[in-house]
This record gives sequence, structure tokens and C-alpha cells, in this order.
Amino acid sequence: MFLLQLAVILFFTKVAAFLVKKISLPSVMGEVLAGVVLGPSILGIIQYTEVLSHMAEIGVILLMFAAGLETDVNELKECGNTSILTALGGVVLPFVGGSAAAYFFGSNLYESIFIGTILTATSVSITVQTLFEMGKLKSREGLTILGAAVLDDILGIIILTLIAGVAVGETSIMLLLIKITAFFFLCWLIYRWQLVKRMAKIITRLRLQEGLLSFTIIVIFTFAYISEKSGVAAIIGSYIVGIMFGQTPYKERVLKSIQPFSISLFIPIFFATIGIRAELEHFSATIGFAITIIGVAILSKILGCGLGAKMTGMDLMASIRVGVGMIPRAEVALIVASIGLKNGIISSPTFSSAVAMVLITTIITPIMLKYSFAVGNETRLIKS
Amino acid sequence: MFLLQLAVILFFTKVAAFLVKKISLPSVMGEVLAGVVLGPSILGIIQYTEVLSHMAEIGVILLMFAAGLETDVNELKECGNTSILTALGGVVLPFVGGSAAAYFFGSNLYESIFIGTILTATSVSITVQTLFEMGKLKSREGLTILGAAVLDDILGIIILTLIAGVAVGETSIMLLLIKITAFFFLCWLIYRWQLVKRMAKIITRLRLQEGLLSFTIIVIFTFAYISEKSGVAAIIGSYIVGIMFGQTPYKERVLKSIQPFSISLFIPIFFATIGIRAELEHFSATIGFAITIIGVAILSKILGCGLGAKMTGMDLMASIRVGVGMIPRAEVALIVASIGLKNGIISSPTFSSAVAMVLITTIITPIMLKYSFAVGNETRLIKS
Repeated sequence: MFLLQLAVILFFTKVAAFLVKKISLPSVMGEVLAGVVLGPSILGIIQYTEVLSHMAEIGVILLMFAAGLETDVNELKECGNTSILTALGGVVLPFVGGSAAAYFFGSNLYESIFIGTILTATSVSITVQTLFEMGKLKSREGLTILGAAVLDDILGIIILTLIAGVAVGETSIMLLLIKITAFFFLCWLIYRWQLVKRMAKIITRLRLQEGLLSFTIIVIFTFAYISEKSGVAAIIGSYIVGIMFGQTPYKERVLKSIQPFSISLFIPIFFATIGIRAELEHFSATIGFAITIIGVAILSKILGCGLGAKMTGMDLMASIRVGVGMIPRAEVALIVASIGLKNGIISSPTFSSAVAMVLITTIITPIMLKYSFAVGNETRLIKS
Repeated sequence: MFLLQLAVILFFTKVAAFLVKKISLPSVMGEVLAGVVLGPSILGIIQYTEVLSHMAEIGVILLMFAAGLETDVNELKECGNTSILTALGGVVLPFVGGSAAAYFFGSNLYESIFIGTILTATSVSITVQTLFEMGKLKSREGLTILGAAVLDDILGIIILTLIAGVAVGETSIMLLLIKITAFFFLCWLIYRWQLVKRMAKIITRLRLQEGLLSFTIIVIFTFAYISEKSGVAAIIGSYIVGIMFGQTPYKERVLKSIQPFSISLFIPIFFATIGIRAELEHFSATIGFAITIIGVAILSKILGCGLGAKMTGMDLMASIRVGVGMIPRAEVALIVASIGLKNGIISSPTFSSAVAMVLITTIITPIMLKYSFAVGNETRLIKS
């Protein structure tokens, strides 16, 4: 059953990706839509099982690792200031806007603040994949987005911890902050001492069958685990590991051996599960609220992140592109939403609205990104 | 937790494989032993979870696919008669020997016959990996073993169905035989019409990202599912798919893109789970019975298969090698044993003995295979 399930998902995601590409949209959109069609929302052929969730987790981790591998650290440093302001703008506006909108619709204070929190954390995997396909991942916009998403995630998690800590009364905020700091200090040490490069050198000398890839996978999984335990999302951990490997001479070899299976098995499953998890039947009950939340989610990121980017001297079109790239919410938003649902902070219709928001922002971003870059290219053509 | 679990398994299997290779034993032995050490039998760090079982299933399926890919059909045909007699000898002797031994130890008739059934089905994955590492997979012995294992599996399943059908009274034997026949007829049609080659040609023309690999994975998973539903083990289905792809010009490309992740993620997990599932603490209770069953399991395959091979004119040393290659029991034996346990046909200590038998035959085969080929090479040196 499980093998057939995987085969069906892979077949339909690939067909959808192909069709969507035919109309010049990024394949990732097709993969998410295939998930919606196969999942409980429409056909109900595929259910979201534990195994699927684990395969999807490996998928998003490998995706972020590849993004890290392709990241040029020096270029990322140059985008530093832009990223910080982008992240700040992209956290403050969605948080305030989301909270206000929910309060306006009659949510209590806790629920309102929680909805604001759900709207903060960007999930750049969709943007990364789209930019990657467009060959724009290494553009200034791409690097700003990646940098901002790293900070954004940290800010979002800090807010969540504060809110959930207050609402549920479980978590020690100081302890969490210490753990996050310790994690990034550990990353800095490994990076500083070039431990990845040194170990990879030893491994390749041992001449094991696929030794380098095995080493890479072990490091990715271990780091994803450690980062999660430190209160940083696993995808951030794997992204950092990607950066570490990207600084070694083994970059190309690692990319070449890790990409085929990622692209043809794990990553399509990840994007399909986003669609599968969107239970659209709950959506119609709260259509007005949901539409408002979705509108706030989209506009607050474009405005907030765009403003942040603009303030550091980026031109208008590039700032908008950064804002657009920061729109999608996925894992973190879904995780936050389910924490809220579990602890009785948000209601079930609110949860469905959050899922719809994840879905819409996910689907809309590739289209808007493509369009925003197309407009940019025209501008440049006119100028030259 | 799940990512750390995978990282720990991969790390220890790779270290064990490296150490075991240092003393000239095949790496697969190290991987199984790493599973025993990590699993409940010794350290108890890793438990056998649903996710691990699914990853392991993908592992064994990819392993058998690669074996099929490397199989030269014309050479396999040449080994046809040898394979048939080898398979027959390797089914009759273990079945009779196992049943007799169990009856002698006081089992009732049903349990005795069931134990005989457990001993029939060979699991060649260990042998395939060992021969692959030794570069002997395409030898006459290797091809005879692969051919015999295919037939052996079918014979074993037919016996199981007869026994379980009688004992449990559920399964329609005629229906099963029709389904198995239909499955092999379907395979023959696909092979005859060169459907795999034709479709692969279309896929590569579409220029999808990793389109060929995606297509391959979809076909493997679908076939594994169909074969299982038809009453043929999933690994046999994927082996046949491997043969089909092996006959196309895409053979090398497919092998190159499918091997890295198979070798560094899925296959080590599969071999580790064999070790993890062996709960040795139950073993000591029935040591005498277990030793007898293990002895019968080993000798009956060497004698039965060896005799079958010898009767078709293979020389003595090669016949022994074939017999040795047919020793290991794994998935099918474990599946049969657990069916027996679930239906109250075999007792819990008997089940543990079956698991111990799987473990010992798995560990012993690589060593014996290496030794048998070393002796064979010496003989050849003397002759020349």
C-alpha cells in the first residue's frame, strides 16, 4: 500500500509539474496542486500518514541543504544589512496586522496574538525552488530572502516561545535563548575550524563505497536534529550544513550525488504533502475571516519586507521581489497553528483558515515571483 | 528523534562496514551486526519502528532492482536448467529436514510443517550484495543463485499458501495460482513489447529534471506493489523491473543515479533492521532446538541446492558455492514465521529460534561465500 501511495504521488506530481511548466509556471506549484487533488480535499486517494510526513521531512531538509550548498557566503554577508531589516519588517507587520485583523473579527486577545504569530515565520522552500528553477537563487534578491528567512525564522520562533510560554506556561524563555545561542556558536566553531572540510578529506581517503555521500547525509540528519532540539527549525540546521559543505572543494561532488534522489523522490513528496494536508472542506465555514487573514498575510510581507529592503537602498522593483519571495508560510506556520489548536488557544475554523493561508501563499508566490522578475527584466531592458 | 535515529544507524553501519572490510569480510556483515548491537538485543538504542520498516523495504527493493539491472538475461537463460534443479533441491530438503527436526523436538504436525516452510524460502539479498562486492554477481554461480532464488521464492510462497490455507482456512489456492500466473504473464508482455524502453525514450525527450530517475522509481514502486498483490514477493517484482531496465540503453544512466542514495541511505538501513529485529534475549530459552534448526537450515540448502546444481553438470566446488549462496533466509522467513505466530501455529520460542536462524544464516553466508570462492580460485590456479 505504502509503495503504491509513493508511486501515485510521484506520478501525479511529475505530471502536474510538467503541465504547469508548459504554461511557464514553476513545477513546485504543480506538485502542491497535485497534493491538493490527491489529498482529502478533493479525491481523497492519499492520506497524510506518518511515513509520508517523515519522507517529506527528509525532502525539505535536503532541499534546504541544497540551498545552503548553493549559497555564496561572501555574497550573503554583503546582503547582511538588507536581510536584517527585511526580516524585521517581515516579522513586525504580519504580527501586528494578523493580530489586529483577528481581533477585529472577534477573536480574544490570546487567539489574536497567536494568529499574528502564525503569520510571522516565512517558509522559503517554495521561493528557493522557484528561484532555483529561474536561475535567480544567487541574485541579490535571492540572497536577501535567504538571509532574511534565517533571521525571520529565529524571530518567529522567539515570538512563538514568548506567546506559547505565556499562554501555556510551560517553556523557559531564557533557557531557550541560551540553547539557540549555543547552537549558533557551535555552528560558528565548526565553520571556523573547517571541521567539515577536514572530515570530508579523511572520509574520501578511506575509499568507502559512497563514503562522502554517507558522511554528508549523517551530518545533515544529525544537525537537523541538534538544531531542532536547540529550538531552531530543522530546515535552518540543514541550510547551515549546506553552507558549510558549500565552502569545501567537495561541493560539486556532493551536489551531484545528493540531487537525483532529492529531486525525484523526497522533494516532490514534501511539496505534495503541503497540498495533501490542506483540508479545504473546513475552509468554506469561515470564508470571510480566511480571506482577510490571507490578504493580511500577503500584503504584510510584501510591505514589511519590501520596506525593510528599500530602506537599505535596494531599488523599488527588487524590494517588491524580496517582499514577494517572503510571502509563503508553510511548516513553521502549520506547526505553530497545531500547537495553538492542541492547547485550545485557537479554534478549529481558525486552524483551517491558517491551513488555507499556507496553501494560498504557497501557490501564489511562484506566480507572483515569476511575474515580478519578468517586470524587472523589462525595466532593465528599457534602461540598457 | 527520527532523523537522529537514521543518523545513528547510518554512522554505525558505515563504521562497522569499514572495520569488517579491514578483516576482508563483506561490508554487509558489518551492517547487520551494527543492527544487532544498536537494537534491543544488546544496547537497545534503536527500536524497530514503522518508518524504519518502510525505509528498509525501499532499501531491499532498490537492492534487488540493482541486481536485476546487472543481470544479463541471456546468461540467466543459460543457467535456466541449473536454476530449476537448484531451486527444487533447495526447497525439498529444507522443508523435509525442518519438518522432521521440529517433529523430533516435540512439535505437533502443523507446527512441524510450518517450520519446514520457514526454512524453504531463500533471501538472496545478502548473497547478491556479497557477490556484488566480490565482483562475482555475473559468474555462473551468481546467475544460478539469482535464477534459483526467483523460483525458490515462488515455490516457498506456494507451500506457505497451501500450509497456511489448510491451517487457517482462508486463502483460495487456485485464485493465488491464477494471480501469480497473471503477474508473470504481464511481466512477459511488458518485456516482449519493450514497453520500458519505449516509455523511457519518451520521458528523456521531455527534458524533465531527473525525469528518467523519477520514471524508474515510479515503475519500481508500482511493480513491487503489483507483485506483492499478486502473491509474489515485492523484491521479486523489483528484480524483474531491474532486468527490464537492464535491457535498455538507459541501463548505465539509471544505475548511476540510483546507486548513490541506495548505498548511502536505504540499503544500510535495510541490513541494519535485520539485526535490529533479532531479539536475542528470547534465544537462550530454546538453545538446543534453535541450534538444530540452524544446522538443518544451513546443511539442507548446501546439500539440496548443491545437489541440484551438481546434477546439471556443474563442478563440485561451484555446486557448493551455489548451495552456500542459497543459505540466507530473511524477509520471507520472518514473514512466514510471524504469520505462524499470529495464527497460533508456532509458539513464541519457536519464533525466536526462526529469528536466530535468519540472523545466523545471514551472518554466516558472506564468510562462507568468500571462503568458497577463495578455495575455488586456488583450485583454478592449480589446474592452470
